[in-house]
Amino acid sequence: MRPGDSLMKHFLQIKDLRAEEYAYLFERTRIVKTRFKNYERYQPLVDRTLAMIFEKASTRTRVSFEAGMYQMGGSVLNLTTSDTQLGRAEPVEDTARVISRMVDIVMIRTYEQTKIERFAAHSRVPVINGLTNEYHPCQILADVYTYIEHRGARGGDADPLRCLRGKVVAWVGDGNNMANTWLQAAEVLGFTVHVSTPSGYEVDPAVAGIRDTNCYKVFNHPLEACAGAHLVTTDVWTSMGYEAENEERRKAFVDWCVDEEMMAVAQPDALFMHCLPAHRGEEVTAEVIDGPQSVVWDEAENRMHVQKALMEYLLLGRIG
Amino acid sequence: MRPGDSLMKHFLQIKDLRAEEYAYLFERTRIVKTRFKNYERYQPLVDRTLAMIFEKASTRTRVSFEAGMYQMGGSVLNLTTSDTQLGRAEPVEDTARVISRMVDIVMIRTYEQTKIERFAAHSRVPVINGLTNEYHPCQILADVYTYIEHRGARGGDADPLRCLRGKVVAWVGDGNNMANTWLQAAEVLGFTVHVSTPSGYEVDPAVAGIRDTNCYKVFNHPLEACAGAHLVTTDVWTSMGYEAENEERRKAFVDWCVDEEMMAVAQPDALFMHCLPAHRGEEVTAEVIDGPQSVVWDEAENRMHVQKALMEYLLLGRIG
Amino acid sequence: MRPGDSLMKHFLQIKDLRAEEYAYLFERTRIVKTRFKNYERYQPLVDRTLAMIFEKASTRTRVSFEAGMYQMGGSVLNLTTSDTQLGRAEPVEDTARVISRMVDIVMIRTYEQTKIERFAAHSRVPVINGLTNEYHPCQILADVYTYIEHRGARGGDADPLRCLRGKVVAWVGDGNNMANTWLQAAEVLGFTVHVSTPSGYEVDPAVAGIRDTNCYKVFNHPLEACAGAHLVTTDVWTSMGYEAENEERRKAFVDWCVDEEMMAVAQPDALFMHCLPAHRGEEVTAEVIDGPQSVVWDEAENRMHVQKALMEYLLLGRIG
Repeated sequence: MRPGDSLMKHFLQIKDLRAEEYAYLFERTRIVKTRFKNYERYQPLVDRTLAMIFEKASTRTRVSFEAGMYQMGGSVLNLTTSDTQLGRAEPVEDTARVISRMVDIVMIRTYEQTKIERFAAHSRVPVINGLTNEYHPCQILADVYTYIEHRGARGGDADPLRCLRGKVVAWVGDGNNMANTWLQAAEVLGFTVHVSTPSGYEVDPAVAGIRDTNCYKVFNHPLEACAGAHLVTTDVWTSMGYEAENEERRKAFVDWCVDEEMMAVAQPDALFMHCLPAHRGEEVTAEVIDGPQSVVWDEAENRMHVQKALMEYLLLGRIG
Repeated sequence: MRPGDSLMKHFLQIKDLRAEEYAYLFERTRIVKTRFKNYERYQPLVDRTLAMIFEKASTRTRVSFEAGMYQMGGSVLNLTTSDTQLGRAEPVEDTARVISRMVDIVMIRTYEQTKIERFAAHSRVPVINGLTNEYHPCQILADVYTYIEHRGARGGDADPLRCLRGKVVAWVGDGNNMANTWLQAAEVLGFTVHVSTPSGYEVDPAVAGIRDTNCYKVFNHPLEACAGAHLVTTDVWTSMGYEAENEERRKAFVDWCVDEEMMAVAQPDALFMHCLPAHRGEEVTAEVIDGPQSVVWDEAENRMHVQKALMEYLLLGRIG
Repeated sequence: MRPGDSLMKHFLQIKDLRAEEYAYLFERTRIVKTRFKNYERYQPLVDRTLAMIFEKASTRTRVSFEAGMYQMGGSVLNLTTSDTQLGRAEPVEDTARVISRMVDIVMIRTYEQTKIERFAAHSRVPVINGLTNEYHPCQILADVYTYIEHRGARGGDADPLRCLRGKVVAWVGDGNNMANTWLQAAEVLGFTVHVSTPSGYEVDPAVAGIRDTNCYKVFNHPLEACAGAHLVTTDVWTSMGYEAENEERRKAFVDWCVDEEMMAVAQPDALFMHCLPAHRGEEVTAEVIDGPQSVVWDEAENRMHVQKALMEYLLLGRIG
């Protein structure tokens, strides 16, 4: 039978998959990326269609999902707010029932996590979270894979997660959906997040949805969070949807700019990541983002490859 | 030769095809749907491109045509009003000449039926009506097929239309493009429509474009229209483009809500259909649309499959 | 290796390729067009993705690139201003770095030529100019090919450019990006442009970027420019972005309407071209554009075929 088989999985937050599944996903990511770089045609998703539903604008998520699906041989439907408003013209459950009869997999970028959960509950096909107010799990997949790519064994590893286990990721800046998702990833994958946010922008472990509060530590000063870190990462001061707070945030975040001083206290070979777009001189200096420890362009490209592996897994299960 | 062959057909209203052609189309629909459900790859339209031109917003028409074309192996160009306005920047005839040189088939959702007719008259390739003020023939294809699927012989029928012949379809509500199209279908396919609309919202047989006024009967009260019906169907009180009349219509249509009382006077195995989106508590109660006689989700999915069969027929003619 | 090979070429203006490369391109255009007309499947770009970035609206450029890429077997991403604004949310260089990691070729329609040049300088993949304030090289490719198709040897020619060499193209109207591009083409391909513009709308050879000012002559009166011309061509009086000057331009351009008198002084077999959309009664009379010397519909279709050949060349180099 086509949709609705009992093994169907969604990817709405990091907790939806187990560590072994991530190990598999990252090994598949390595394989599909290598094939892309070598122009080896690999089209396991011919005949499958992805519907992307965007309630917030996007460049990177849009391009990475759409180009990734094409590379896997599939087709893509791009539905923006002007085409459909989840829950406006009809209940989100009805939209889910209709769309999931016609396509094979759905990616949604929306506001509340509850909305994507309601959609998924009535969908016949897998649903992927392409960003909500609470989580951004696809970006964290890309970030973790980029870490493995730069710090793991060359040519792959029987346990791709090994190089990350016990390491320290420093999160500098807003306690937002990216921060929440890093915390969940730390719990599931076995590393620690050192968080430093301005006062009033703390992460909320209840929203992050973690059980084990040992997976992160909070620091008042960003330099303390960066000390000894294997990876330093940040995000824009004002995420989409918070533009009204822009001026207030610019004042509150002024000391949360990742600069060479912060990188100097981290591990000597620490990586710098940023989910982009970046504002040089605000959350990161040009010296850092354009410097030798920055892997932001690999990170951006890897969004595409991890999502290819993710779609392959959700649609075809384990291969080989 | 590529386009412009003398057998080219458009699908601008139900009258454009004959009953035998519909019998063929519904049998092809059954086949392409079965292949989809079984994941049998069937891509006869590889190398063919569909251009969709939307002058009104759409979710269902958009998704069903686009996903359907991908399943058939083809490609899709989605042109919205912001990309092109038929007859604004240039005469619609010029747009038709240019676009029909580059693609293989065109679907148009617009306002006046005359506009799609002018486009078709200057097009080198087949044109499909994806909704006009006057007609919605693709939706009626889906509805008739859904009736056949639920009430015809299992596994197909030498004459798929037989199960529908002589039956009664109750139309409850606005005398709109859906109602007009049901009347045409009744004339071509040999069934009867029992129509009940509020005063001031009657169907106009001249607009419906029927010759045989025996194919429908008008009833003042919706219960009378539903009595003995094999299919009860309705639509939103306020279609796209009539939002300014919303308040007035809410008052006029208050008794035209399909409820369990109406379904009770219909045939015991009567089906309920709705082209969606539905407003529970307005044109239909939750009990009916979410009840056992409702086939609205099959109906929505079947949009896609009938349109696949339609595009296959318009592009490739009779197969096998 | 995938992108960034040392032979990578962009197509930002006519000067970017040499005459021999154009001869090759036009012969490939003839071949891909013939295959299209004969329904011979030819999909050398399977596995390749085109990203189109539109900062100005478009119908013809959009449809011709998108349908053309599908015919070649590839995929297309359509990014409009609402999806991404080059240089707004992030520096154009960052957008180039990210997008060119994920797709195989990029087409950009934007305002300043410098913006597309900055994008190209940071792109790993070929970039095509789909219209800037300064140039419209894809349209001129189509126009030159259409001339060759109508005036060259039937069935192709060892030197497709021969039929054009030494000929006279009359440009009547605005000294805009189309006029600039005609001048560059004249220099590279060896013909002459006779230009007549209203006062205040002259072509600027510095903007046109030509070295050899012998490739064009300026005439005060359009009849003089048309005298003896082998091709007469014009454009709308008010191009996109100049709508505020509309009234002023209508007065200034009133004598620059291509009419039967102008065609009568040209060569007896002179062709008429227009890149469309056309405003009959403004820049051209209905008698001319709808008359026997007009090849505007072939010209529109040829946009698609020359661009197919162009993408094939930029991605795969010389074939066979």
